[in-house]
Amino acid sequence: MKGEFDFIRDIKSLFPSPDGVCGIGDDCAVIPQRDGMETLVSTDMMMEGVHFLKDDIPAYALGWKSAAASFSDIAAMGGTPVGSFLALSVSASVPESWAAEFLRGYRDVSELCGFPLLGGDTTSSPDRICVCVTVLGKSASGLCRKRSDALPGDLVCVTGTLGDSAAGLEAILKGFARTDEVQRLIGRHYLPRPRISEGGILASCPGVHAMMDISDGLASDVRHIMEESGIGVSVDTGKLPLSDDLLSFCRSHGLDPLHFALSGGEDYELLFTVDPSALDGLEVPCTVIGVVTSGRTLLVDGKEASCTGFRHFE
Amino acid sequence: MKGEFDFIRDIKSLFPSPDGVCGIGDDCAVIPQRDGMETLVSTDMMMEGVHFLKDDIPAYALGWKSAAASFSDIAAMGGTPVGSFLALSVSASVPESWAAEFLRGYRDVSELCGFPLLGGDTTSSPDRICVCVTVLGKSASGLCRKRSDALPGDLVCVTGTLGDSAAGLEAILKGFARTDEVQRLIGRHYLPRPRISEGGILASCPGVHAMMDISDGLASDVRHIMEESGIGVSVDTGKLPLSDDLLSFCRSHGLDPLHFALSGGEDYELLFTVDPSALDGLEVPCTVIGVVTSGRTLLVDGKEASCTGFRHFE
Repeated sequence: MKGEFDFIRDIKSLFPSPDGVCGIGDDCAVIPQRDGMETLVSTDMMMEGVHFLKDDIPAYALGWKSAAASFSDIAAMGGTPVGSFLALSVSASVPESWAAEFLRGYRDVSELCGFPLLGGDTTSSPDRICVCVTVLGKSASGLCRKRSDALPGDLVCVTGTLGDSAAGLEAILKGFARTDEVQRLIGRHYLPRPRISEGGILASCPGVHAMMDISDGLASDVRHIMEESGIGVSVDTGKLPLSDDLLSFCRSHGLDPLHFALSGGEDYELLFTVDPSALDGLEVPCTVIGVVTSGRTLLVDGKEASCTGFRHFE
Repeated sequence: MKGEFDFIRDIKSLFPSPDGVCGIGDDCAVIPQRDGMETLVSTDMMMEGVHFLKDDIPAYALGWKSAAASFSDIAAMGGTPVGSFLALSVSASVPESWAAEFLRGYRDVSELCGFPLLGGDTTSSPDRICVCVTVLGKSASGLCRKRSDALPGDLVCVTGTLGDSAAGLEAILKGFARTDEVQRLIGRHYLPRPRISEGGILASCPGVHAMMDISDGLASDVRHIMEESGIGVSVDTGKLPLSDDLLSFCRSHGLDPLHFALSGGEDYELLFTVDPSALDGLEVPCTVIGVVTSGRTLLVDGKEASCTGFRHFE
């Protein structure tokens, strides 16, 4: 198999999107309705042994994360919730209590974010657990934000803090002592909170241009905006928003917080570009981390950066 | 794990559907729009080793079948196509040609049935292939057909012929010689044709009440209509539509064609109930195979039948 992005390019060439539909290549597909609304749809598959290790994540957290990752795709476009569909493949050897806990986590984040479960599919698996979540949202016509809308001169912003989820994962995998700060970082990894309301507010602001969520890591995800918008981005690492927990954790273990903030996935924060004149009016707490340039490269502290995000098929 | 249907009941109790939305328990969820239309959504997962064996099905056929099974859920409600979403998990050891053939089959049935591919997800798998297809359709408000609408006195009808797909599978698994008739039965198994246009025509006829597609087998699927409508069904096996290929195949190999017609899955024909007065006006070729009764049992040739369809988690 080729890399994931080559494969997606093959699919795009084989399946052209119909007129008026924004299809493959963004966080969601955008399907126009007759009533001035657009339906947003995204689907995500998580396979045991690739996206998670069953013994390293409680069933409750896996249920929560599976749903949250998809809800975040709706937030990334600035959409509001419609509902979700859950396909779950579990082997007969998995205890019922595992499935009950998985569903409880899925339900709790669904209630938190306002996405009712509307359907799905349950099948057996010979061994590995596989989860596929499809999520539907909606947006007033023309309001949803795409990756392709960044303009040179825009400021590049993120919500929240970066790298906490990846640091939590590091603590889990390395078996670090569960201090309070480590518990909070693990909480960011297990129970991410999609930025649904923030996404909706940002989409209602005309000065906000391109938007997406950070799922694979900043350095990897920002390249999608660069590619789809045909622009470059210059990031100043001194401006990256780092939590006190991350800084303290990295000090304790001799780790580099910038590594987590640049390359760590699953923060599910929003990454967006905004016209400088609109920054002061934004009603969402955020941090300016860089600027959009007319070049096609990613500059990190002025130096051209290699791609360091999470990759499938490698 | 419990059986599939117990698990679905647990999910239904944990996730109540919001007002106005017909959620879990039918072929599709039905989501009302503001413009007098309803959005239909269904999701289906197929796991290697459970739903298919990689060496027993060409990649092209797997791509076709994965999409066709989901398109059939839209046909089952009488909906028209909007588009599909494909999540595909494939290990790095699977050759690119396999993926290309899979996509070609998926595309060909998508073009045949009028469903553009609008998005999806591609991930790696440690070993098994997993496919999850989510399909969107639409229907004018109140026109789509549910499993819960059967009335005592209705005639029970099916489109096409039954059991061909299961006989094709039998021929594949047993390695029977590929005579012309066997090739045609295998074609029914590999390349099923969802009854999209027939479903739409039937949904426009007020006398057509409950409708669904036959995916697990007649004897299993008819029970969903019984359960959701609170009725019974009496089937006359002498009336089951059997193809010449099935009859000839069964004669040659000493097999019972009724076994395939009653219990064989993946025919993707439509099963529906219709007021007797509306039968003559139906513009879709179909066969009357029985009647809806006010009892709660399934009678086959007058005798109470046990459930014999395909079951997950067993």
